[in-house]
Amino acid sequence: MIDNPYYSQDVHGPYEIAEIGDFALEDGGAIPHCRIAYATFGRLSSAKDNAILVTTWYSGTSKIMEQTYIGPGRALDPEKYFIIVVNQIGSGLSSSPHNSPGPIGMSKFPSVRISDDVRAQHQLLTEKFGLSELALVTGASMGAQQTYEWAVRYPQMVKRAAPIAGTAKNTEHSFLYAQTLCEAVTADPGWNGGEYRSNADVVEGLKRQAHLWAVMGWSTEWFVQKQYAPLGFTDAQAFLTGFMEPFFAPMDPNDLLCMAWKWQRGDVSRLTAGDLAAALGRVTAKTFVMPIGTDMFFPVSDCAAEQKLVPDSELRILNNSGGHLALFGIDEDFKTQVDAALRELLAIPVVKQQPAMAR
Amino acid sequence: MIDNPYYSQDVHGPYEIAEIGDFALEDGGAIPHCRIAYATFGRLSSAKDNAILVTTWYSGTSKIMEQTYIGPGRALDPEKYFIIVVNQIGSGLSSSPHNSPGPIGMSKFPSVRISDDVRAQHQLLTEKFGLSELALVTGASMGAQQTYEWAVRYPQMVKRAAPIAGTAKNTEHSFLYAQTLCEAVTADPGWNGGEYRSNADVVEGLKRQAHLWAVMGWSTEWFVQKQYAPLGFTDAQAFLTGFMEPFFAPMDPNDLLCMAWKWQRGDVSRLTAGDLAAALGRVTAKTFVMPIGTDMFFPVSDCAAEQKLVPDSELRILNNSGGHLALFGIDEDFKTQVDAALRELLAIPVVKQQPAMAR
Repeated sequence: MIDNPYYSQDVHGPYEIAEIGDFALEDGGAIPHCRIAYATFGRLSSAKDNAILVTTWYSGTSKIMEQTYIGPGRALDPEKYFIIVVNQIGSGLSSSPHNSPGPIGMSKFPSVRISDDVRAQHQLLTEKFGLSELALVTGASMGAQQTYEWAVRYPQMVKRAAPIAGTAKNTEHSFLYAQTLCEAVTADPGWNGGEYRSNADVVEGLKRQAHLWAVMGWSTEWFVQKQYAPLGFTDAQAFLTGFMEPFFAPMDPNDLLCMAWKWQRGDVSRLTAGDLAAALGRVTAKTFVMPIGTDMFFPVSDCAAEQKLVPDSELRILNNSGGHLALFGIDEDFKTQVDAALRELLAIPVVKQQPAMAR
Repeated sequence: MIDNPYYSQDVHGPYEIAEIGDFALEDGGAIPHCRIAYATFGRLSSAKDNAILVTTWYSGTSKIMEQTYIGPGRALDPEKYFIIVVNQIGSGLSSSPHNSPGPIGMSKFPSVRISDDVRAQHQLLTEKFGLSELALVTGASMGAQQTYEWAVRYPQMVKRAAPIAGTAKNTEHSFLYAQTLCEAVTADPGWNGGEYRSNADVVEGLKRQAHLWAVMGWSTEWFVQKQYAPLGFTDAQAFLTGFMEPFFAPMDPNDLLCMAWKWQRGDVSRLTAGDLAAALGRVTAKTFVMPIGTDMFFPVSDCAAEQKLVPDSELRILNNSGGHLALFGIDEDFKTQVDAALRELLAIPVVKQQPAMAR
């Protein structure tokens, strides 16, 4: 366990912590006294029918989801909905390598899967909030992986789903990209097999990871258009050292590795013996699949292929030159497009049929 | 200077070496007794009007250009043309960090620009072969950078030009990608500031670079289509360890860094005080600009923007799912498309006007 002020209420709050007990993991082992950090916005209706779950992406927390996607007048409007943003395991706020005690701390943190996150979230939402349905589950990138897992694993509970810029089954290409992110960190001698004393020991590795995000995260067009200029940078190198590096440098290397491992192996077809069509065929949620047109590692082609397997779904391409990191919401038009799609999705009436067994 | 059997006649021959004397470099310094490695195919006509110059890409040599693009019945047909493939400085065959003596060996090798290569090639072609015109200059990737530099710097000499999958002025995004390639190597403690004893000391860095090539080199579609299967690999990881890693691992790290530095700074507008339109406006060659549709770092958009600035040019997009590394020519249809375009270009009559000054 090491101290890292980046993962604090000051930086990412307000958020709350729920203890969900000793949480057994799909790949074996457990997280004792597992803590799930979450933030809520709005009020749960007495009928408990206005809850929205928002999941988090790699390196992101509830804070960026709040700042970028939630607010009065937005599709995710706290005046209408009870919005719960759950920070994934390994996020640095929930149980994570850097904040876990000795037996599972740092390099000893167990492998966690997307499915583990979704089961932990399910426990939180059902036990703590007494929810039996969600008006919407949405999330982007790794958040989309969790969204798909929710829709496949708990179809009766998910009325609507909006996986943004992510896939139900991670591709080999996306696996390789995440692998290079990991290698950027683990190649740093300061990483020391995961037993560094401070994330600062691994700052060179973290900066190299930031560079890989710069290359694959934004699109080639984004750089040609000098979209970094409105952020106050004169060229790509200034953007690298002034934005991308400071963004990743304060993060915890093991936490990032924990999330990357999960990202690489996200796959709802683990529930159906590898049959992706069967898994996505289980989805009963009204679903908008929302890839970003210029995304280089969750490209439209991969997302569209999956959308065809989701029964009641539509493909809604987000047109933006930002690439995957359009998700940061720097461009107002991107947020407008996301809001328009989510608003439309939320306006579609959905009546959940009871499971066949219960009819 | 270190020994590396990869850069030998056994692996890359037959090739010849021309000494072009002490070669002064644009950024200062010089390469004493500069050696340029080249391979020729076919015979120069008595009118000396059938010469074609083929330039080389990052990590490539005359061998892969021969194997992939040159042969009887191909567009680059030795039975019709005298084809000269010139290995770039830093390629490992021509003067390069690893094969240069002490004062400029290894980490002390001077910075070399695309323009230096093109001036060296010009000296070789004019002095050794007595050429005053080239029926075609073509090359891919960094070879395209050299092709553009030829067409802008020596317009009277270049009758036709075919820059494939590369740009006249490197973009910021492409610069960043090359930067991550460099960092993969320099992050390896075995690199030791460029003063390693053997490239094997840097093998982990070279493998990481191979992984970055896997991610950005091929396209996302290529992996979805499992295009590695015809090569005998069952999955992407097997392809990584069985193809990409062995491809880069035997190379010299400093040689790769030398080429990457050049790639990053390729820019014909250095000849016109930064005015790219003015530089490309100088081109009098009939030009086919040939980007690959799925290229992730020399995307069609970047290449098409430049093509519009070249007076007598056409955009010929190569449709292939291979991404940038379609250039390896694994897919026969890709080679067929390249050949068709080059054959068409070579069939267009071009009469060079004398320079205005000489009229």
